[in-house]
Amino acid sequence: MTYRYPNGKIYSPVEKEKDPAKKRSNPLYSNRGMTLEEDLNETNEFYLHRGIAVVHKKPTPVQIVNVDYPRRSAAVIKEAYFKQSSTTDYNGIYKGRYLDFEAKETKNPSSFPLQNFHEHQITHMKQVLAQDGICFVILSAFGKIFLLPASHLIGFWERKENGGRKSITKAEIEEHAILIPLGFSPRIHYINVLDALYFN
Amino acid sequence: MTYRYPNGKIYSPVEKEKDPAKKRSNPLYSNRGMTLEEDLNETNEFYLHRGIAVVHKKPTPVQIVNVDYPRRSAAVIKEAYFKQSSTTDYNGIYKGRYLDFEAKETKNPSSFPLQNFHEHQITHMKQVLAQDGICFVILSAFGKIFLLPASHLIGFWERKENGGRKSITKAEIEEHAILIPLGFSPRIHYINVLDALYFN
Repeated sequence: MTYRYPNGKIYSPVEKEKDPAKKRSNPLYSNRGMTLEEDLNETNEFYLHRGIAVVHKKPTPVQIVNVDYPRRSAAVIKEAYFKQSSTTDYNGIYKGRYLDFEAKETKNPSSFPLQNFHEHQITHMKQVLAQDGICFVILSAFGKIFLLPASHLIGFWERKENGGRKSITKAEIEEHAILIPLGFSPRIHYINVLDALYFN
Repeated sequence: MTYRYPNGKIYSPVEKEKDPAKKRSNPLYSNRGMTLEEDLNETNEFYLHRGIAVVHKKPTPVQIVNVDYPRRSAAVIKEAYFKQSSTTDYNGIYKGRYLDFEAKETKNPSSFPLQNFHEHQITHMKQVLAQDGICFVILSAFGKIFLLPASHLIGFWERKENGGRKSITKAEIEEHAILIPLGFSPRIHYINVLDALYFN
């Protein structure tokens, strides 16, 4: 839906958004009130409360530099910086198996840029796969949500490292990723996809 | 080693320590330069680099209230608060199995106070056990390091909830927990204990 100021100029919520966690860059998310992260958190709560799986988002890593301890009240962090994570954002357990994933979105209409990931995360995914964990990424792209197994992401990453293209094409995503239909509850029912891929 | 000021007074680094993560309350740790958390981080790095297991400490959960975005430089968090975690601090994967644990220390010479844990964490441990995860606590107490399976901790917690004692006695720890001998590298070789308990 488009809102206009009284002067006719189109209101753009993106311009006013300062919290990077609330970015709504994807067409799928720009038209709804929720972010990919919020949808996944709701999905994980749904799984948790029904006893289906235990998956949590890790807290944002922060380097704390200065903390104030006022008397009789809680400590206040006065200076801190965002740190780069050395792992993925989500992990947990489903039917005894270790789950590990990252969620990313793009507004690019034709490909998924690999700069959404960093070297540490790819290394982490390889380590998880070596321990026989279930590892994947949830991608919000082209107005849809996909689950791409980490093995494929690693393949595309290595193509880039070897001088190949810096993104995954839309056709490649459609070939190797599995579409997760958006639902009401849970919103992003990725466990369904895992059942089909890993538990049969 | 004891350091003295020129006036002969003994220098105590504990008095100057303000960072709660660096507390050295346990006799085992008060005599060494490392904290339980540092020993576990080193142990987990050892496991990671040798391809033995992938275990990470989760970042400290922080509620970010105010962030400054100075031009051309990194965002500075100007106001934030420590949040209570809804899970345990450590999780990961070993030989395909999901691992989940919390590490706590006490200086109490005769028992381990249950107030070191909170309700959320006990609930989380039950959820992990229900998914067939390996869940435990690493306790630094009485000058030693122990691994106590979560099932026992939950038992002691429920005794407290039913009006029983608010701690685990030293004798109970010695009966139900497994001693982890302190080593050089890795420092706290808890995987050895898991091998004996869960992988044979």
